[in-house]
Amino acid sequence: MTKKKEPIDKIKLDGLNLRIFESGIKKKNTDLLLITFPKFSSVSGVFTKSKTPSYAVMDCRHKIKLKKKNIKCLLVNSGNANAFTGIKGQICVKTITKFLSKKFKCNQNEIFTSSTGVIGEVMDPLKITSCINANKPLFINSFKEAAKSIMTTDTFPKYTCAKVKYKHFEANVVGIAKGSGMIAPNMGTMLAYIFTDINISSSILQKILIKENEKTFNSITVDSDTSTSDTCLLISTNKLKNKKIDKFSDKNLIGFKECISDIMLDLAKKIVIDGEGAKKIIKICVEKAKSNISAKKIAFSIANSPLVKTAIAGEDANWGRVIMAIGKSFEEVKQDKIKIKFGNQLVTEKGMKCSNYSEKILTNYLKGNEIEISIDIGMGDKTWTVYTCDLTEKYIRINADYRS
Amino acid sequence: MTKKKEPIDKIKLDGLNLRIFESGIKKKNTDLLLITFPKFSSVSGVFTKSKTPSYAVMDCRHKIKLKKKNIKCLLVNSGNANAFTGIKGQICVKTITKFLSKKFKCNQNEIFTSSTGVIGEVMDPLKITSCINANKPLFINSFKEAAKSIMTTDTFPKYTCAKVKYKHFEANVVGIAKGSGMIAPNMGTMLAYIFTDINISSSILQKILIKENEKTFNSITVDSDTSTSDTCLLISTNKLKNKKIDKFSDKNLIGFKECISDIMLDLAKKIVIDGEGAKKIIKICVEKAKSNISAKKIAFSIANSPLVKTAIAGEDANWGRVIMAIGKSFEEVKQDKIKIKFGNQLVTEKGMKCSNYSEKILTNYLKGNEIEISIDIGMGDKTWTVYTCDLTEKYIRINADYRS
Repeated sequence: MTKKKEPIDKIKLDGLNLRIFESGIKKKNTDLLLITFPKFSSVSGVFTKSKTPSYAVMDCRHKIKLKKKNIKCLLVNSGNANAFTGIKGQICVKTITKFLSKKFKCNQNEIFTSSTGVIGEVMDPLKITSCINANKPLFINSFKEAAKSIMTTDTFPKYTCAKVKYKHFEANVVGIAKGSGMIAPNMGTMLAYIFTDINISSSILQKILIKENEKTFNSITVDSDTSTSDTCLLISTNKLKNKKIDKFSDKNLIGFKECISDIMLDLAKKIVIDGEGAKKIIKICVEKAKSNISAKKIAFSIANSPLVKTAIAGEDANWGRVIMAIGKSFEEVKQDKIKIKFGNQLVTEKGMKCSNYSEKILTNYLKGNEIEISIDIGMGDKTWTVYTCDLTEKYIRINADYRS
Repeated sequence: MTKKKEPIDKIKLDGLNLRIFESGIKKKNTDLLLITFPKFSSVSGVFTKSKTPSYAVMDCRHKIKLKKKNIKCLLVNSGNANAFTGIKGQICVKTITKFLSKKFKCNQNEIFTSSTGVIGEVMDPLKITSCINANKPLFINSFKEAAKSIMTTDTFPKYTCAKVKYKHFEANVVGIAKGSGMIAPNMGTMLAYIFTDINISSSILQKILIKENEKTFNSITVDSDTSTSDTCLLISTNKLKNKKIDKFSDKNLIGFKECISDIMLDLAKKIVIDGEGAKKIIKICVEKAKSNISAKKIAFSIANSPLVKTAIAGEDANWGRVIMAIGKSFEEVKQDKIKIKFGNQLVTEKGMKCSNYSEKILTNYLKGNEIEISIDIGMGDKTWTVYTCDLTEKYIRINADYRS
């Protein structure tokens, strides 16, 4: 049940093939990632909750809901989100899916696609199909290059991997992701793909993904904006020789679940660190709340507050803004029970500033690049942790000036 | 039932006396406003929904809920919010209230106070009581100076007034307000006071205030942050000779209600225009929604989106961000029914960019200082309008660097 980190170059997933192209959808750099899987590979997925999702998201969501599901091929393009492009957007997804199902001799339900980039611009499916037909990949079988090809405003590629024991077998897990805001709808959004070789059913994968997603990708925020295209797929080639796992409660599975959680949290944190213009990563931990939902709501209220995030960008010990953000969560709290800590320094108790509070120590703490804020609500025993980044002038510059 | 705008200097409300002091709570400038009213003046109030409200808010909220209520005295200080100051904060409000009730020979329930400024700093009530005892006001009976004395990060004082007919009587209405974010918790918050002389019961005033507040002060946002101290009081001296109004449905009252709405919207817009770092005011009108709540939710989702606000600051015709913000409201919509207009230019229809959409025209429109975005949801007949401002680098500078 142990797991260990490995250099990504050393990880190999039998039967999984990566091809990385320059299709011309982006002005420069690779922008097309084609992954094929062995027959009967298992697939699970979670998607944006946006009510204006992209056509790729709608298509994937439909396929994940099917009772019997496998994946043969995953195609991801960057540079165009193919979102809000009307009937043309739907036709584009259908054309690509049909083309790939013929090429790889499989059912259309086994083809999954993602698109990330500008919203509202029509995407030409011919660019993609002709590029794949020409078959001149710039790279093959490199997870690093795969991670690079799906980047938009990201400043670095995001990938991670591990090996984990299941009974006497050793499973491989690799994850790649992109995102530098919960959304940067000019250019991108959050995408993540996690691959493994453990022999497991799609339905168990789906349960694991939904559970681990809550405390990882669903617990980060950059700017409170939600993408039209957020997608996270967890896929297994099933090539490991273990007997197919079809019980969520399988005790031997604990280590694997933890490993998936670690991989997802690692990628999630990398997205936050790469938040547009961000200089600091902020961990917000709400403890002793009445319920998980209450803890999460309070944590996100703080994490999404422009005034909390600008104070931290300015290294200003203005902890009153945390009080404000707790208040605007509209969760019932008792002011005199709230305890706020920055790092190890207790800042408030009994409904006011601590008697031994030192602004100098707090200001000094805020000069660091990793800020931890813990809030003890004193009303129960539930905890939730959320990650975010500071809000700097550079965020405004990136997002105000990009197209001008 | 007509109303007319008047220069504020010409408005006089019999029996209402204003005194404006420099108490030293702020480092410089006037910071204390004392208003006394004739006996049995009517009072109504609405307050922040924050779950960490200031002690002044808690005290006022309690008094407004009393069955029998009148106001004799209103005291407002700027420079300190007296919020999250524990037992000392409660004692401070009590001390001031007791002192004023003795001074003006009235019940403590007739004393209302507001505080605006830094959160978490203990406020010394002696500063206030000794200043009032010394009785050396810098100004008397000037609404302009009253508006100035409650400013914090505001760049201009906010006041407005009108005369309105009720039957054959003419009522005066004056409003003053402060705020340059829904909150600027370093320095302030939103406060508004509206005074009139129409003879009216407190309970009718309360109904009018609650109704008009929804479409005015509750329909503006600067940064999505909610204050610990938001307060709006509507007060009448009852000096007009009309028979006391005690029916909300009184048909002759329509003009007065409209006038209160106009005064509140005027002050609300002034707060948005003065939004920290803002260069543009943005009016967001959501039409043909399924319900008022749905329209309001979608409008606020757009108004609070950092990516929509930065695009407008950058005069970038990136309307896809409006689609994203509609989606993240989580209200059910049909993409192909949504129509987006910027000013008079139709941008989208049938789930995609209009065929005759011109980015040049839209970019040109965005160069103006007043931006109007209308969204036709095509699902019903309800409308809601929200006002906000753009999000500029200056917002970050003001809020990151203030205390450093």
